[in-house]
Amino acid sequence: MTKAIIIVAGGSGTRMGSAIPKQFLMLAGKPILMQTIEVFFHFDKNIEIILVLPENQIGYWENLKREFEFDIPHKTTSGGAERFFSVKNGLSMVSEATEVIGIHDGVRPLVNQQTVSSCYEKAFEHGAAIPVIQIKDSIRKMREEGSKAVNRDDFCFVQTPQCFSKDVITKAYQQEFNKSFTDDASVAEAAGFHIQLTPGNTENIKITSPSDLIIAEQLLKIC
Amino acid sequence: MTKAIIIVAGGSGTRMGSAIPKQFLMLAGKPILMQTIEVFFHFDKNIEIILVLPENQIGYWENLKREFEFDIPHKTTSGGAERFFSVKNGLSMVSEATEVIGIHDGVRPLVNQQTVSSCYEKAFEHGAAIPVIQIKDSIRKMREEGSKAVNRDDFCFVQTPQCFSKDVITKAYQQEFNKSFTDDASVAEAAGFHIQLTPGNTENIKITSPSDLIIAEQLLKIC
Repeated sequence: MTKAIIIVAGGSGTRMGSAIPKQFLMLAGKPILMQTIEVFFHFDKNIEIILVLPENQIGYWENLKREFEFDIPHKTTSGGAERFFSVKNGLSMVSEATEVIGIHDGVRPLVNQQTVSSCYEKAFEHGAAIPVIQIKDSIRKMREEGSKAVNRDDFCFVQTPQCFSKDVITKAYQQEFNKSFTDDASVAEAAGFHIQLTPGNTENIKITSPSDLIIAEQLLKIC
Repeated sequence: MTKAIIIVAGGSGTRMGSAIPKQFLMLAGKPILMQTIEVFFHFDKNIEIILVLPENQIGYWENLKREFEFDIPHKTTSGGAERFFSVKNGLSMVSEATEVIGIHDGVRPLVNQQTVSSCYEKAFEHGAAIPVIQIKDSIRKMREEGSKAVNRDDFCFVQTPQCFSKDVITKAYQQEFNKSFTDDASVAEAAGFHIQLTPGNTENIKITSPSDLIIAEQLLKIC
């Protein structure tokens, strides 16, 4: 199977209370984004890596690469106003020969090899697959007339990479943008494709706050 | 307002891969359960603290108290086969004069004063209140015909303490036990009471796995 991974990093840094966008913050001595890219390179040395960054961060990234002597081959392109358009830009860079395309959050460096591998395999077989994990905490549904307890076993958390056959994801992203698209699976679903679920890993958190970064440092030590 | 807190600790330790039940594991130099009790004592020196432990752990707890010279006043009672029956046992120990009763997970030592205070206040006003936080990750609903993306903004995570006027929680716990009771709010809701929501704090995690314990250690440092 020939593979590509589109890594989307759109953070501006404001939620982190930091001037540096979250994807460039240091995790175990290296910018988060480099840690994330390494996971996919380690998974498959021949994977086509496409990085989507806000236009005004591309120069900063080039500097970081020099500073850290980061030499994993990848293409870089600029993002759009919404994640949907960033992914679309990434998709336009994928080579003709690629069979399965993954889309991954740049700030999820703790995804493990098992999660990545199962997701690509299942997408290769069925067209679309995403990693999910159980919800441990109680959840409630908010409604206009008040909230209501729901059974958490009826729900699951969605992680990335979300993987698709080239045909599926290309067709899905030909749709018009819709605010209800929460992730790539919801885009594919809206285009009529059925999504398979594969097991994610609990450490595969999205780093969006300073406490997430501290947690990630600790999780890296025990993973 | 006169208050009580029922702290329920039913863990047996198996999920932690440890012989020691999770509520007794060390967090910042002290058993988790002591950290949890201290939060409520700090909130109100006159709060009535009722601890519910599995029968066969009460002796161990007494030993720990001596070892750590733990002198916060509290009553201890034994738990039942289900959390529902443990809470019921705790409720039977609450003093006549108590107006608002909170019920809290023993393994949530990181609840902050603001969360606790808002919850008691709102329960005092409205009869029933629980702390909730936003869901950051994408979630899906699992159905027989396959899963489906749902809007995470329509859902929230539920934390503890869950607080109730004495009248509300007493009536609620007169119901027969039902497997659908996921927390105390769902018990009160089944009895026809309306639940108010108050803001929780993101650090208020339930410590149920070894990685949670590592995360909690780090969160304690920055809280």
